[in-house]
Amino acid sequence: MIKIAIIGAGNVASHLGIALQHAGAEITAVYARDERKAKALATKFHTLWVDDIDKLPANTQLTIIAVKDEAIAEVSNQINISGTVAHTSGILGMDALAKHKHRGVFYPLQTLKSGVDVNFNTVPLLLEASNEETIRLLKKTAKLISQKVSEVKLHERQMAHLAAVFSNNFTNHLYAVANDILQTHGLSFDLLKPLIVQTAQNIQHQLPAEVQTGPAVRGDMETIDMHLQLLREHVQYRQLYELISASIIEQHRNKK
Amino acid sequence: MIKIAIIGAGNVASHLGIALQHAGAEITAVYARDERKAKALATKFHTLWVDDIDKLPANTQLTIIAVKDEAIAEVSNQINISGTVAHTSGILGMDALAKHKHRGVFYPLQTLKSGVDVNFNTVPLLLEASNEETIRLLKKTAKLISQKVSEVKLHERQMAHLAAVFSNNFTNHLYAVANDILQTHGLSFDLLKPLIVQTAQNIQHQLPAEVQTGPAVRGDMETIDMHLQLLREHVQYRQLYELISASIIEQHRNKK
Repeated sequence: MIKIAIIGAGNVASHLGIALQHAGAEITAVYARDERKAKALATKFHTLWVDDIDKLPANTQLTIIAVKDEAIAEVSNQINISGTVAHTSGILGMDALAKHKHRGVFYPLQTLKSGVDVNFNTVPLLLEASNEETIRLLKKTAKLISQKVSEVKLHERQMAHLAAVFSNNFTNHLYAVANDILQTHGLSFDLLKPLIVQTAQNIQHQLPAEVQTGPAVRGDMETIDMHLQLLREHVQYRQLYELISASIIEQHRNKK
Repeated sequence: MIKIAIIGAGNVASHLGIALQHAGAEITAVYARDERKAKALATKFHTLWVDDIDKLPANTQLTIIAVKDEAIAEVSNQINISGTVAHTSGILGMDALAKHKHRGVFYPLQTLKSGVDVNFNTVPLLLEASNEETIRLLKKTAKLISQKVSEVKLHERQMAHLAAVFSNNFTNHLYAVANDILQTHGLSFDLLKPLIVQTAQNIQHQLPAEVQTGPAVRGDMETIDMHLQLLREHVQYRQLYELISASIIEQHRNKK
């Protein structure tokens, strides 16, 4: 079975390592700058913790660098074993790994939080590699844990990462705005939880533009004016309301 | 058991009527401007279809006006039976029902689509009424179908409606933007579906601001700059990206 070393001890390193190990891969070692977290993760994997990146076992076939984007190049340059090296960034190219002949990308398109189990089976894994032999290794590894493996170019992966920011980070911020509006008026965020789940469900079988509802897509200017009036003392939220409504109107004008 | 007439034949009328009937309420009649849809709904309820609002059965205790906001006052003025009259708007006051002594609001805070079953048990119902007797009737009726019944003032209900627009309509538009970004680059929206579901799940037990992730909350200007560069040819999306990112940064600056 494939022998994998994990660099990093954050959420991606942890979730990915667990999924790979459950699928039968052998985790040869864990290294991370944060010794305490690295040790904890190595213990979780029942594997070796190394205090120096030069001590990664030489029989490691794939080293996965799951650290912050800005640290990837530096970590890559410290790795001296000969196997394949891959990072997990959604946005960086393979040039950060230029030192290694067999280099690639292993990007899981999902939000990975500590303490929240993820079914990796449905997590899209976007791969890229420096040559045929390397992409074969990455694909074989990815298919151990996910049914949604695809090879994409850098620009496509970056676009997928950008789209993920809109549908995850930005969406979550709109939930936060909604919560703030409710709390300011003594109402509980619980009121919105079923709606939020239903909204995410509604686009599982139809495209979002097809299920768009609300005053903007209806052209209901009376309701929009009432909402803007309710937001008159909150410049930031009023700007968000106006810009998103304008974008909805624009999108549906283009379709007609 | 309570006797209820339904005015309107859209999604709210249909879902609400079905839930009430399943819970044991008697639907006395259906009336709607669109005769074809009204007849279909009456058939679904195995109840009376009336072609004139004056033919609503006199023994009706509660008439629910589930029509578009702009038509509520006109419909209300045409009703001549003596029971309670309630509308289902998230934003209009009871003054639209001024003709009736026993008037109120029965607002389901959920997105109701035809063909998509909704478990009303978890749908928040926000109530308001003109007097004690009427609120008792509305509460008793609401509790037949939902465990989340609350009496709220007009301003609170309007704020809940506004918050729903942010977390439902606006969120869905962000999904649409993400889909557009993917499609433009030959990628499938399927890539984002697990992420979108997980994002909605993450706020079921924690507040959204506590689980905010992404470049804006990290202050990762390098990634933000790369994303803006990717959006250089799409002014609308770039504006959305900039404004929402600024709002995330602002919100988390306030918390520190």
